[in-house]
Parts: sequence; structure tokens; C-alpha cells
Amino acid sequence: MPKSREVHLTAHPDGMPTPDQFKVIETEIPDPGEDQLLIRNNYMSVDPAMRPRLSNGQQPLNVAMGGGAIGTVIASRHAGFKEGDIVQHQAGFREMYLSNGKGLHIIEPGDLPVTVFMHTLGGTGFTAWGGLLVTGALQKGEQVFVSAAAGAVGSVAIQIAKIYDCYTIGSAGSDEKCAWLRDELGVDAVINYREGNLRRDLKTAAINGIDVYFENVGGEHLDAALPRMNPLGRIPVCGMISSYNNPGARSEGVTTLSNMIYNRITMRGFVVTDFQDRRDDFERDMREWLADGRMKYRETIIEGIENAGNALIGLMQGENIGKMLVKLS
Amino acid sequence: MPKSREVHLTAHPDGMPTPDQFKVIETEIPDPGEDQLLIRNNYMSVDPAMRPRLSNGQQPLNVAMGGGAIGTVIASRHAGFKEGDIVQHQAGFREMYLSNGKGLHIIEPGDLPVTVFMHTLGGTGFTAWGGLLVTGALQKGEQVFVSAAAGAVGSVAIQIAKIYDCYTIGSAGSDEKCAWLRDELGVDAVINYREGNLRRDLKTAAINGIDVYFENVGGEHLDAALPRMNPLGRIPVCGMISSYNNPGARSEGVTTLSNMIYNRITMRGFVVTDFQDRRDDFERDMREWLADGRMKYRETIIEGIENAGNALIGLMQGENIGKMLVKLS
Repeated sequence: MPKSREVHLTAHPDGMPTPDQFKVIETEIPDPGEDQLLIRNNYMSVDPAMRPRLSNGQQPLNVAMGGGAIGTVIASRHAGFKEGDIVQHQAGFREMYLSNGKGLHIIEPGDLPVTVFMHTLGGTGFTAWGGLLVTGALQKGEQVFVSAAAGAVGSVAIQIAKIYDCYTIGSAGSDEKCAWLRDELGVDAVINYREGNLRRDLKTAAINGIDVYFENVGGEHLDAALPRMNPLGRIPVCGMISSYNNPGARSEGVTTLSNMIYNRITMRGFVVTDFQDRRDDFERDMREWLADGRMKYRETIIEGIENAGNALIGLMQGENIGKMLVKLS
Repeated sequence: MPKSREVHLTAHPDGMPTPDQFKVIETEIPDPGEDQLLIRNNYMSVDPAMRPRLSNGQQPLNVAMGGGAIGTVIASRHAGFKEGDIVQHQAGFREMYLSNGKGLHIIEPGDLPVTVFMHTLGGTGFTAWGGLLVTGALQKGEQVFVSAAAGAVGSVAIQIAKIYDCYTIGSAGSDEKCAWLRDELGVDAVINYREGNLRRDLKTAAINGIDVYFENVGGEHLDAALPRMNPLGRIPVCGMISSYNNPGARSEGVTTLSNMIYNRITMRGFVVTDFQDRRDDFERDMREWLADGRMKYRETIIEGIENAGNALIGLMQGENIGKMLVKLS
């Protein structure tokens, strides 16, 4: 029987996860039975959205962690899949996956790199598209602020805003990220939130206010954005990464929410499954934007399943530009 | 020429207003010219929503303060109004008002006390109705939390929730207010937020979570409510009185906003003018509820224009039960 390594969570973190909370376990994988298939994973997706699940009870201890992955079918006794198929699934953090076919999705990458299906054409891209266009109800030419704009979701969101002829403001946590946003993605105003004064810098950048704030960070970012919101502004809440690694997952205190009242601001949390009925629209848009070069991306690739835990910790500390992936050998 | 007293704001407060920031000035009122009428005000409305306008530049200094009022026409050279008409207007804090007829609304109270047009059938009632039913999209039988539930808006909102067969939780700041909510309005669970631990008490009260949180207070109240919100919950934001009298109108820090994400919560600020196209529906509902006794109210009446500033300060400190009014002699 082939051997496979998988990543287990050994304790529910409260605060920043530590490397010892992730353990790599070797297991033996039986041959596929009837209606089963065996997948060798090629890439695992590392997402901020994984973090809350480690603490809120969704991720059980001492089993292979959930998470997005793409792999190749290496043996199949399932009528729906054949050897060589490239498949995407959410049963993530393991080298091999013995599946009954449920939750698998065959990918036909064509001319596209397969990793694109893990970001721009995958869950992160769909999240950005739906959050900005559906939840955020973006209109052409509006004023748009995206926090964590050099992240996987943020970098798609801010490029969609550019494509919609919006004035774009992006925040990021390093000069390298800011340079990418400004010089390659064409973001109109870029803020390094680890330097200067976010509140003041956002006031300067948002010269015509903010119609849509695509929220990835929370805490101080939201506190700074609310006083800048224009009447009838929208805040689609995709994530609040600044809070996930605090005790009790609490953010820094937000003190400016009363700005919502007279400006009639709407803030709404969303998850990507809210947009399932719009998937065809998303894929049509994104394939067009990738083909004509208007949608750019970067990947931060970590090698080896033994580094998956550290990849997630690194993501929480902002070590990625664009999409964070773990590549399996 | 008749003499009239009016209340001027002498400085824009930052923090709790002080009595010296309100000055009563005596002026002489000319006789009505052509197309003018003279009103003697009977009641002035004291509302939390007035407070932000004192600091945000909307209320100029050293002129009669704006605010809702009801008065009687004592002389008219305007074709639309005759002596004895009862009129409602927003040019508020003065004993007499020489008007050109703009912004005036004739009231025909019939069997109802005229003050009802300043609360349940007036702006506060319409605010509660629209915030709960339109912005909050209340459904029958939901779980509803109303903060400042013994206030003018809150007490209407929580009674509408009762009429919609909802489980109701109300917070208030004194035992007397809590007793009114529990014993006379039939609120299911009552929390005195000045005693005990709001977060813990709300968790106990919200045994089936919260579908709609009608937000009047902000800060600690919102911090406690967010973790209790059910999936697809709504938070119509009517006011955040806890912040208005802090420096910079900042609330206590809200740290639990990340609960909005997975539960896909919508928080939306609103003002009563958002619902203008529904005024007939509101008036039909409220007249029915007043007539059949399902809508109760209380009034806290302060006498004399010289006490108007203190009435507003008292409102900010929770001295009212139900609607705060100033009665003019």
C-alpha cells in the first residue's frame, strides 16, 4: 500500500498558531475499492479563511485538515473519473486522497496553468468577484478601497475595480507589495499600513471618499475607512484577518461605526457559496480578463507538505504576495 | 411686537454638552407679512438624533436650534393656514415661529392626543416602523433584540416586534424602565445594562440567538450582540447614543465584527426619510395599533423653554422613559 503524509491539527489555537499545533503524520493508503479513486495532490491552497475554522470547532483535531487542493487521479475504480484526470477538492492537506468521488470537480486547464484554478479562476477569484459586484453592488467609476490588496482575494478585487473604471485605493503591508500594486496592477493610491498613519493616509488617498470598501482586514482598517465612506456606501466583509490571531478572535476596537447612520452605509458579511447561481458569469468574466491580460496574478509557492503549517502561519503574518500555495513533490 | 424666547447653541460640544452651551435669547417677532403666518409652539421634541448635529456642523451657532415641534397658528396671512390650525414643523426650539409655510404640516388629531404626532405617529414611530420592517426586513416569529428599548424609538420597535409574534429582548438603563418593558409592554426578556454583565446577560436571554438587532446604542451593546446573531441576521442601525457624547463621537471599541462573515450578517444605517414612500402604510398600521391598544407609550415632559438644553442633556443620560418632550406654557 502507498504511503501518504497528511497534516493534522493537534490543538485549537487561540491566538497566533504555533508550528507544534500542526503535525505531519504518515499513513498507508489502501488500494481503491469499487467506486473509489486515488488522487495524488499537486497543490494545496493556503487561505486566511482556514484560520477561523481551526478555532471555532469546524476543524476536528488529529485528522487530515480540510482545505482546497488540486491533484491527479492515479488509480480509479469510479466510473466518473479516469487515471490522469486533474481534480479539485476540499479534502486538502494530504499527499494522497482516497475518494468516493463526492465533492470532486474535474478541471480542464487547456492553455491555462493549473494553479490558476486555485486563485483567479478558483475560490479566491470568485470570492473577490462576488463580494465586489454582487454584495458590494459596484458601479462603474466609483471610489473603491481594498485592504490587503496584495493578497489573493484583494488583488483580484482591486483589479476588477480597475476594470470597472473605478478610482482604486489599496493597502498592503510591505514596500514590495505596494510596488506591485502601484507599478504592475496600476492601483491609483497605495498605502503601506505598517508605515505612516493609516487613518491620515487613507484620508489623503480617498480624496473623493469611498463608495465601496472591500474589507479583508478589520480592526484599525475599518476604523479608518468608516469616516471616509460616502452616502449609501457599501462594505462587503470578506474577512477580518487582523482579528483571527487575537485571543478570542477579537479585533482591535472599531470606534467609528456611527458614521453608518447618516450616510446609510451597508456592511454585509458574505461567503463564496452565496454566489453559486452566478458561477457562469464569473467564469466568463475571469477567463476573458485572464486572456486579454487585464487580470494579473502572483503566487507565493512553498514546497513540501512538511511546510504547510508554517505556510499558514506565514500567510497570517503577511509573507505572501498574491496566492499562497503549497506544492507537493 | 410679541416677544419670543428661543434656544441658541453657543458652542459645538465635543463630549457631553454642558448647560452653558445652550442659551435662551428673547427676540421680538414682527407681525406676519403677506404669505406668512405666526405659530405659537406647544411642544418641542427632544431626540437623540439631535445630538450629532450639534457637533458635525449641521447646527449653526447663535440661531434658533432646529428640532421637531407642534404649535398653533395664532395669526395668518398665508392662504394655506388659518388661525387655530395645529401644525408640525422642524424649526423647533423657540416659543414662536414666523413661517412662510414651507415645511409645515397641518395635524388633525381627532380623538388622539396631539403629542402622539411627536412619537408613535410621528418621526420616532416612523423611524421604528421603517427600521424594523423595511431595513430590518422583520419576519413573523423571529428573535429580536432592541437596545434602549424604553426610549421613544426603541419602545415602538419592540412593540412592533411583539405584534409580529417575535421573541423580544430589550435593554434599558434603570429598574423602572425594565419594569415598564416587562410588566406593561410584555417584553419577553429584559436586561438592565447598567447592572450585571451585558455580554453574559444577553447570551442568557438570546436562547435562540438574534435574527434582528435594532441598534440604538452601539459600543458595548453591539459588541455583545454580534456573537449572538443568527445566520443571515440583520442589524438596522438607527442610532449609537453611547458614542455621541464621547470625544470625536467615538464609541467604545467593537471587537466582534468578524462574526458578520460566516453568518452573513447585514448591518445598515438608515434615516427616516428612506421610507417616505411607505408613509401611508406606516400611518395605517400605527393608527390601528393605537386604536386597539397594542401600541402603548409613555412621555417624559419637561416644562418651559428655559429647560430645553437640560432636557437634551438629560436625554443623553437616560432620564426619559419613552418620548422626551418640552412643553411650552
